[in-house]
Amino acid sequence: MITVLSGGTGTPKLLQGLKEIVDPSELTIIVNTLENDYFSGVYVSADIDTVLYTMSDIINDEFWYGIKDDTFITHERLNELGCPELLRIGDKDRATKIQKTLLMEKYGLAKACEIQTKDMGLTCKILPMSNEQSDIKIITDIGELEFHDFLIKYQQEPEVLDVQFSEVSPAPGIIEAINNSDAVIIGPSNPITSILPILSLEGVREALKNTYVVAVSPIIGSDSVSGPASKFMRALDIDVSSVGVASLYEDFLDNFVIDTEDENLKDEINQIVNKVTVTNTIMNSLGAKKNLAQTIINNIL
Amino acid sequence: MITVLSGGTGTPKLLQGLKEIVDPSELTIIVNTLENDYFSGVYVSADIDTVLYTMSDIINDEFWYGIKDDTFITHERLNELGCPELLRIGDKDRATKIQKTLLMEKYGLAKACEIQTKDMGLTCKILPMSNEQSDIKIITDIGELEFHDFLIKYQQEPEVLDVQFSEVSPAPGIIEAINNSDAVIIGPSNPITSILPILSLEGVREALKNTYVVAVSPIIGSDSVSGPASKFMRALDIDVSSVGVASLYEDFLDNFVIDTEDENLKDEINQIVNKVTVTNTIMNSLGAKKNLAQTIINNIL
Repeated sequence: MITVLSGGTGTPKLLQGLKEIVDPSELTIIVNTLENDYFSGVYVSADIDTVLYTMSDIINDEFWYGIKDDTFITHERLNELGCPELLRIGDKDRATKIQKTLLMEKYGLAKACEIQTKDMGLTCKILPMSNEQSDIKIITDIGELEFHDFLIKYQQEPEVLDVQFSEVSPAPGIIEAINNSDAVIIGPSNPITSILPILSLEGVREALKNTYVVAVSPIIGSDSVSGPASKFMRALDIDVSSVGVASLYEDFLDNFVIDTEDENLKDEINQIVNKVTVTNTIMNSLGAKKNLAQTIINNIL
Repeated sequence: MITVLSGGTGTPKLLQGLKEIVDPSELTIIVNTLENDYFSGVYVSADIDTVLYTMSDIINDEFWYGIKDDTFITHERLNELGCPELLRIGDKDRATKIQKTLLMEKYGLAKACEIQTKDMGLTCKILPMSNEQSDIKIITDIGELEFHDFLIKYQQEPEVLDVQFSEVSPAPGIIEAINNSDAVIIGPSNPITSILPILSLEGVREALKNTYVVAVSPIIGSDSVSGPASKFMRALDIDVSSVGVASLYEDFLDNFVIDTEDENLKDEINQIVNKVTVTNTIMNSLGAKKNLAQTIINNIL
């Protein structure tokens, strides 16, 4: 059994490779829920849906959001009506969100994800990190912003001064999944807004200390491979480098995968983590994703 | 100024004709809200939307529900996901419902309708009968049913024993609209589930007594022109005929429009209502709708 900690786009890319070389029934994916919120009357858990769609091979892997070849009839009509949606929700994608909203209001988010995972014919487990509604605020030079406003409305442009998020309880099964795993993979997701929220859950860091943990760095050189990770790290006074990421995971990390471009950092990171694996971490093809996944699996077994 | 009391499909058919011969800015349409409820996460006020779409010339006038030539991508995907919708909501129609839900939760239903009416470029006024959530139960030989379950899931088949609905307060502007009108038209909608709920609002019957009221009978012979009106009338021990309908409106009705087929009932109805107008009430073409509307207008002026 392997547990994967996942967020926005970096980890789903890795999952696309991992699912080709590991039986998906051996995978439990714990997904960040910090950015979940209601939009257009439906509950949007974008990171969970991205994992659902990735594992179902229907992900729009241009944006790592929504369903491939989806239409946007309702979305465009809302624009015409003068009621634009902040999130661009496709027509098929909206069905997932409607179903999840109805299931969640009846059974809670974790059970809703379990039902949807089965409905889509998947054998992996997808666990939201928490059943509780959480909240993340980005403190910027133009004021306090909601996460999606920062990301979409302000195009990640304001300077980030701080990131604050609410404390929530872990969803049932999270700690058990980690404890029962042969290894935990922390994907190359944003360490501040995707991974730290999972690590902050009560009992998670303790459980990780007792499990073999391999993490993939989302940083190459002094910048994030994609997304605003570097902005958030800088705001929290964390060195924007693989060294900085390693320091965040120091207390439980067993193996850190960094890009070949960062080979020069190996000795410095070795002072933080026992084992450092150097390989190509840029996942610009299915082959590259499978290679990275295979390297990780070789290190686990 | 003319106020129209409207429900499901009969009155919207008449509105399609009326809007061609009266300046829509002279029309206020008070719409039944008793059947409104949440479906698939959005607030569905089907009767209001049918009026909105009819006045905008985009109504699907095969079903008198939804938008003409709409697509059903989200609806069909929900079926595939094993989460079928009771109501068949089209993709463009869903945008109307999403907008109304968001506006209603912020401003209340009446204001939401006012905004949507303007957004669609309409000059008429569309007033929901109430801002309050109401409830209608159909007591049948197979038990108590929700209105939409009776209508769609059970295809109006069970025998109706009683109809019960909750008391709600009139939305702001209802009584004023009636008081300020030269005449009120009660369309050929279901008298029990569409018109009686409006008549039951505090102050409505009093206001109608002081205004010239013309009603169109939804019954020809001993059956309703469309829909389950006759079933509901029978359950409440009301004679299923134009005579029975006239008796429901007896205390305020000034002019009752019945179909030529019912000309033999004229004398009997004349004992209930001062004036009886006999004309073709079957609206099977735009011409027929305009003719019926013109006959009503000629009787008002």
